[in-house]
Amino acid sequence: MSFTRVAIVGLGLLGGSIGLGVRAHRHGVVTTGYDSDPQVRARARDLGLVGTVIDDPAEAVRQADLVILCVPVGAMRQAAAAIAPGLSPGVLVSDVGSAKQGVARALADTLPGHTIIPAHPVAGTERSGPDAGFASLFHARWCILTPPDGAPADKVADLTEFWQALGSTVEVMDAGHHDMVLAVTSHIPHLVAYTIVGTASDLEQVTRSEVIKYSAGGFRDFTRIAASDPTMWRDVFLHNRDAVLEMMDRFMGDLSTMRSAIAAGDGDAMFDLFTRTRAIRRGIVEQGQDDARPDFGRGDHDRENAA
Amino acid sequence: MSFTRVAIVGLGLLGGSIGLGVRAHRHGVVTTGYDSDPQVRARARDLGLVGTVIDDPAEAVRQADLVILCVPVGAMRQAAAAIAPGLSPGVLVSDVGSAKQGVARALADTLPGHTIIPAHPVAGTERSGPDAGFASLFHARWCILTPPDGAPADKVADLTEFWQALGSTVEVMDAGHHDMVLAVTSHIPHLVAYTIVGTASDLEQVTRSEVIKYSAGGFRDFTRIAASDPTMWRDVFLHNRDAVLEMMDRFMGDLSTMRSAIAAGDGDAMFDLFTRTRAIRRGIVEQGQDDARPDFGRGDHDRENAA
Repeated sequence: MSFTRVAIVGLGLLGGSIGLGVRAHRHGVVTTGYDSDPQVRARARDLGLVGTVIDDPAEAVRQADLVILCVPVGAMRQAAAAIAPGLSPGVLVSDVGSAKQGVARALADTLPGHTIIPAHPVAGTERSGPDAGFASLFHARWCILTPPDGAPADKVADLTEFWQALGSTVEVMDAGHHDMVLAVTSHIPHLVAYTIVGTASDLEQVTRSEVIKYSAGGFRDFTRIAASDPTMWRDVFLHNRDAVLEMMDRFMGDLSTMRSAIAAGDGDAMFDLFTRTRAIRRGIVEQGQDDARPDFGRGDHDRENAA
Repeated sequence: MSFTRVAIVGLGLLGGSIGLGVRAHRHGVVTTGYDSDPQVRARARDLGLVGTVIDDPAEAVRQADLVILCVPVGAMRQAAAAIAPGLSPGVLVSDVGSAKQGVARALADTLPGHTIIPAHPVAGTERSGPDAGFASLFHARWCILTPPDGAPADKVADLTEFWQALGSTVEVMDAGHHDMVLAVTSHIPHLVAYTIVGTASDLEQVTRSEVIKYSAGGFRDFTRIAASDPTMWRDVFLHNRDAVLEMMDRFMGDLSTMRSAIAAGDGDAMFDLFTRTRAIRRGIVEQGQDDARPDFGRGDHDRENAA
């Protein structure tokens, strides 16, 4: 085991799940944790998310050989400054943020001389806070490491092994490319979901109660994503602006094209798009990145409840 | 029991589920069925989706007191013409189409003198075809009836009772209002999902393989919806054009506003939207229109599989 003392800063969905994952999968590793919110610290103690919850950030990371910052992307700089006085010389500092170039800059600025390897486990749910975590969150999910130029290879290997122990498959990628890939696969989908739910709730012609009642026609899927943590997502869009705007312009251009097809009654253009998109779904199900059951297995659950 | 002989025209996901639902919930009701595709008829026979599968559309509806057209919206006119010679004088003709004004016109034109009450069960999965149906598809879902002016009240009551027997809650609505409501809760979400999956698969900067790998960040939810039946959805957009374009313009306007907020680094505007949208999700879960488990219970399923 490469790391023997792991400190987790930020004890929400991700931090809590890492703590529980280490306890489940890496016996003998000591975990400490800190959160800037005293109520979250109290709840994390009750739930046993880490071995010891400590009230001071610098104390929480003292003696740790791996520190993982699990705070919103916009809070990384402040969190890094708060732990700086307690960091050991040989410590590896990592994080779980969804936008990597901004985080890399913030950590490099704030913690000069320390080894920093940013990471992004592509896993989560719409829940947030200390009660949302569970040990298997990272099972069968990808974790992307974005080591800066000159990052020590042995530390990259150690961090890879750490995430593998939690059940993830690890990929190493350039931070800029990460931000472009995740803009497509995560940031734009969230922005679109938030926006469409906002549009639906502001209509005059259709009441909010009707939107809720008839949501099973597709809308409800968007509302799940649009229930995600507002602070986390605000920070993602503030810190991955360029890639998000670039992808958004592509998407808005494609949407205008579809609008024209509908206005012109061009059924062939629609049929072509609606057929092509099935191949991507097949790939995702085949590669184990989503449930193959129709309607995410909702029918199964309804049947169980009805039975 | 108001209806004793029910004919189902079109034996895909919806038609098959109605057949299975009648068998499960309405013992003694005789069902017949027809599909224009001989392979679907053969499969429907093997699966027993209806009591008798008949090779001729007019024969399939002969003696039926309720006929339900379960074909894509654009095929309603042709299906109605095909059954017309076999319809009994007292029959009620209904359907399951997702756009109601266009269907009402097509059926009224093609079947003058017959009683027609269009209907739309707000239920479905991303699967299609005769193998996709199941008897509980309509449990705890809404079914919207859009009776035209002068539709006989007793027939509306009979059709209400029919859908209630399949597990649905029935609402009566004006066809024009239906088309506006469903444009928001179903048609625009599908169009957005199809478009975003198309955008992602056409990028030069991000490979299709990367899009698939990192889809758990949100994108995978959109791919499920974008795997729905292309013919059905092309027809919805062709036949609910005005409401779809109106709602699309609202959505695209809101998206432009969010784009400006991101470009300007306006975190407050984002935080405000991302907070408001949570209330709608709560309403949907509280009213039983979606699974309350985080991530649609995917974690549970993963854990079961891993255990």
